[in-house]
Amino acid sequence: MDKDYRFLKACLRKEVDVTPIWLMRQAGRYLREYRAIRKKHSFLEMCKTPEIATEITLQPINKFELDAAILFSDILVPVEAIGIEIEFREGKGPIIHNPVRSKEALEALNISELEERVFFVAQSIRLIQQELNGKVPLIGFSGAPFTLASYIVEGGHSRDYLVIKSLMHREPLIYHLLMEKIAKIVLDYLKIQIKAGVQAIQLFDSWVGCLSPWDYEKYVLPYTKQVIDGLGRKVPVIHFATGTSGLLELMKRAGSDVIGIDWRINLDVAWRRIGYDVAIQGNLDPAVLLASFEEIEIRVKDILKRAAGRPGHIFNLGHGVLPKTPVENVQALVEIVHQYSRR
Amino acid sequence: MDKDYRFLKACLRKEVDVTPIWLMRQAGRYLREYRAIRKKHSFLEMCKTPEIATEITLQPINKFELDAAILFSDILVPVEAIGIEIEFREGKGPIIHNPVRSKEALEALNISELEERVFFVAQSIRLIQQELNGKVPLIGFSGAPFTLASYIVEGGHSRDYLVIKSLMHREPLIYHLLMEKIAKIVLDYLKIQIKAGVQAIQLFDSWVGCLSPWDYEKYVLPYTKQVIDGLGRKVPVIHFATGTSGLLELMKRAGSDVIGIDWRINLDVAWRRIGYDVAIQGNLDPAVLLASFEEIEIRVKDILKRAAGRPGHIFNLGHGVLPKTPVENVQALVEIVHQYSRR
Repeated sequence: MDKDYRFLKACLRKEVDVTPIWLMRQAGRYLREYRAIRKKHSFLEMCKTPEIATEITLQPINKFELDAAILFSDILVPVEAIGIEIEFREGKGPIIHNPVRSKEALEALNISELEERVFFVAQSIRLIQQELNGKVPLIGFSGAPFTLASYIVEGGHSRDYLVIKSLMHREPLIYHLLMEKIAKIVLDYLKIQIKAGVQAIQLFDSWVGCLSPWDYEKYVLPYTKQVIDGLGRKVPVIHFATGTSGLLELMKRAGSDVIGIDWRINLDVAWRRIGYDVAIQGNLDPAVLLASFEEIEIRVKDILKRAAGRPGHIFNLGHGVLPKTPVENVQALVEIVHQYSRR
Repeated sequence: MDKDYRFLKACLRKEVDVTPIWLMRQAGRYLREYRAIRKKHSFLEMCKTPEIATEITLQPINKFELDAAILFSDILVPVEAIGIEIEFREGKGPIIHNPVRSKEALEALNISELEERVFFVAQSIRLIQQELNGKVPLIGFSGAPFTLASYIVEGGHSRDYLVIKSLMHREPLIYHLLMEKIAKIVLDYLKIQIKAGVQAIQLFDSWVGCLSPWDYEKYVLPYTKQVIDGLGRKVPVIHFATGTSGLLELMKRAGSDVIGIDWRINLDVAWRRIGYDVAIQGNLDPAVLLASFEEIEIRVKDILKRAAGRPGHIFNLGHGVLPKTPVENVQALVEIVHQYSRR
């Protein structure tokens, strides 16, 4: 049955009637319905309460003709589950109160019994699938090992990623131990999601764009590959990151079915460099969604033209929907993509 | 006489004895001598007092065998000169109290008599040249039009550059008027520097990496090109930006002699894409300077190997020297580059 969804077909580069579209952060602050719930609950509460996570996941699906739903959660959920204390401050990004920077701190992380500690994720997935009732497939996700390690080591967002880079370069043993531990957690976490019923996975390696190709190849690629290999091709895997125009050929070696790109490179150039044996996801600048319908239409047509009707293009933004995005522009985007990509 | 400096020769892709090296922010907080002056003066005071600017400019030249000096100043100096109120907060980046977001605010900018208002820059340049006494050439610089416009419109550093992008997409007339005004200021400002005696120019388009190739080509390239064309090849021009792996071919069309790249792309890949008829500057990750001598050596050798001894490589970091950089590592870097690149 899965193979009839155009999103899943596109992940595997099969022919589709129209280009599928979903949007990163499609369930988010730009939706009035989302803000109404956000007012009453903390962010972690929203992630951890299956009924709320389900309602939020479904909001954009009920509103727009999107081709996939994505589990409402946070990339740091598995990090919290192993003993990292995270505080989510609105508009500020997460703050980690006990960053890991020593072997002792690393050894103190408790990676056992993950399934029990993220039981709410499996519950949410099952509930969402009940509610979706086959309307569209559900994407699960996790932060990729490097991005989670950066949070854990830096203690939050970082401007220059100096702490994690210094750990790499000066304490490679600790760095590698940390990455092994996190890769294991990420793999387990994704297996839990697949078992609960997600039909595709997106790995967010949001911060990998701060690295040189040298560091990426030596310090990141092996762990991302380990996760993707470990999933055993049970469901399609999308490997997304931003600022990766210099890393695309290396990212391909991690082995995902789809590579998600940002808007900083033309889609045709990126796809040619990645190779047509991998599907591609992207790549409208989220800022364009704040412009006029006409401007959005011109940009969408350009991206579709660059995809050239080749099987394996999933339309998305180059990053998450911005909070200031007008809802009617999201509506227009979805319609335009479907309209102009009809085969 | 200028043509004997290996830095200037490399800018014009002439053969040199060893690869020249200078470092962005080579006069900066990682130097004890710099911090001693910084304690006693505000940042703008340091930029605006020729004796202080000269002393700081010379600090790294007296300490290391660098192949060029760069004027100590700030990219926002010409912005302040046209009536923008800037506050420099240590570690926070500049804050602009009167961001320009309307036609009225734009028209209020006073772009006349720039020379009088930046007289201290010309004075500094003359004094630095006296002190340098021909030891190494002096690089002048300016923020490129888009980066200055971003500061002026956003009001400081930005995470998503949403205000400037919205201006582009929703109020293109105001955007273009602003860019025309700024391009004129930048050109005038650089001419003043050349007249005062700088022997090369670096244009910092530090923030352009936030843009899609579409936006870069339509909204930025014409203005950068206008500045570079306006300089009339009197001195070599280096065009530097970060996060531009997807923009390199377009940047080339702006017409600089040298393109400065960051560490997010391998130097050989970048140079092949730019074409060998332009020189290249880069591209060690500044974070590597916090690692061991051995690590620095391995990385430097890799970059030199990728440059393949081809004329037209200027060694630099991919961005400014980080404040936590050990001085002895900068020393080692300069020596290693000279040692391993000897023809």
